Amino acid sequence: MEGGVESEPTRIMVGVSQSTIKGYPHPSISSKGAFEWTLKKIIRSNTSGFKLLFLHVHVPDEDGFDDMDSIYASPEDFKRMKRMDKIRGLHLLEYFVNICHEIGVSCEAWIKVGDPKEEICHEVKRVQPDLLVVGSRGLGPFQKVFVGTVSEFCAKHAECPVVTIKRSIDEAPQDPVDD
Amino acid sequence: MEGGVESEPTRIMVGVSQSTIKGYPHPSISSKGAFEWTLKKIIRSNTSGFKLLFLHVHVPDEDGFDDMDSIYASPEDFKRMKRMDKIRGLHLLEYFVNICHEIGVSCEAWIKVGDPKEEICHEVKRVQPDLLVVGSRGLGPFQKVFVGTVSEFCAKHAECPVVTIKRSIDEAPQDPVDD
Repeated sequence: MEGGVESEPTRIMVGVSQSTIKGYPHPSISSKGAFEWTLKKIIRSNTSGFKLLFLHVHVPDEDGFDDMDSIYASPEDFKRMKRMDKIRGLHLLEYFVNICHEIGVSCEAWIKVGDPKEEICHEVKRVQPDLLVVGSRGLGPFQKVFVGTVSEFCAKHAECPVVTIKRSIDEAPQDPVDD
Repeated sequence: MEGGVESEPTRIMVGVSQSTIKGYPHPSISSKGAFEWTLKKIIRSNTSGFKLLFLHVHVPDEDGFDDMDSIYASPEDFKRMKRMDKIRGLHLLEYFVNICHEIGVSCEAWIKVGDPKEEICHEVKRVQPDLLVVGSRGLGPFQKVFVGTVSEFCAKHAECPVVTIKRSIDEAPQDPVDD
């Protein structure tokens, strides 16, 4: 299938999220797991054969005010918060991009704001990766009802092959909904 | 993640089935698609980094008689038919194994008899591959009700990461249930 000349690299999109416990810029356990699985099991030593596309979807707080008292927020505050979110998201992506640079895997990274499952599927449609890798907390049916699962939605709706990497049981925090 | 010494190869199980139109030993369009995707997008030129595990599950006819008139079948006929099925399944596997030998990817192949979705999940549990690749006809919800989908069951129940490769639309036969 491959001759002496290597064809275009395989483009793998990796959906990454922040830790719900530690917040930005820390990656969630399942994001890290998905990334490390991709490096170890798919890319292996063939660093020039792949390109990683990191997508982080920032979820705005419902009230748009994060931890700040909403009453005293001015339009300027809003702008600053948006900028802060962007910076925090960039720091999250930096974690993944730095490792790629170290091991010599080419990559791109970007941030979208909105509903992760919809934004990921939208970006898959736009970017057309060869594979989408998403981490999963491996929640049971009861927990899923309340928190939903991005990975299940993507596996069903993303217009490319999808692989879901479940977080290992020994890495799960006390509350399995956390990550 | 990878030093100078390459670690154990990544073990990818590929579920393969016969063509419903041409029968044994012809592979189904979706099996071929899943296999070719794995070679082109994952293994690429890194042939020593992977090992493919081909599993074919032979589905016995409900009445156990295939095209033969049941009234005249003796116990000897049964034995012969079982042997025939096995030989046909082996010829199906030969298709995949031969390509692997040609390009230098190590592989194993075996046959189980039973319900494909259950046998695949059972073998995943036993063999513990790093990834399971299954083809899919990409049926709509209406068609799924009648034919079921092995890939959806495996994606949900197999105890390893699973990637489903949908058959491309231009390869689909007139009746999308065929493959």
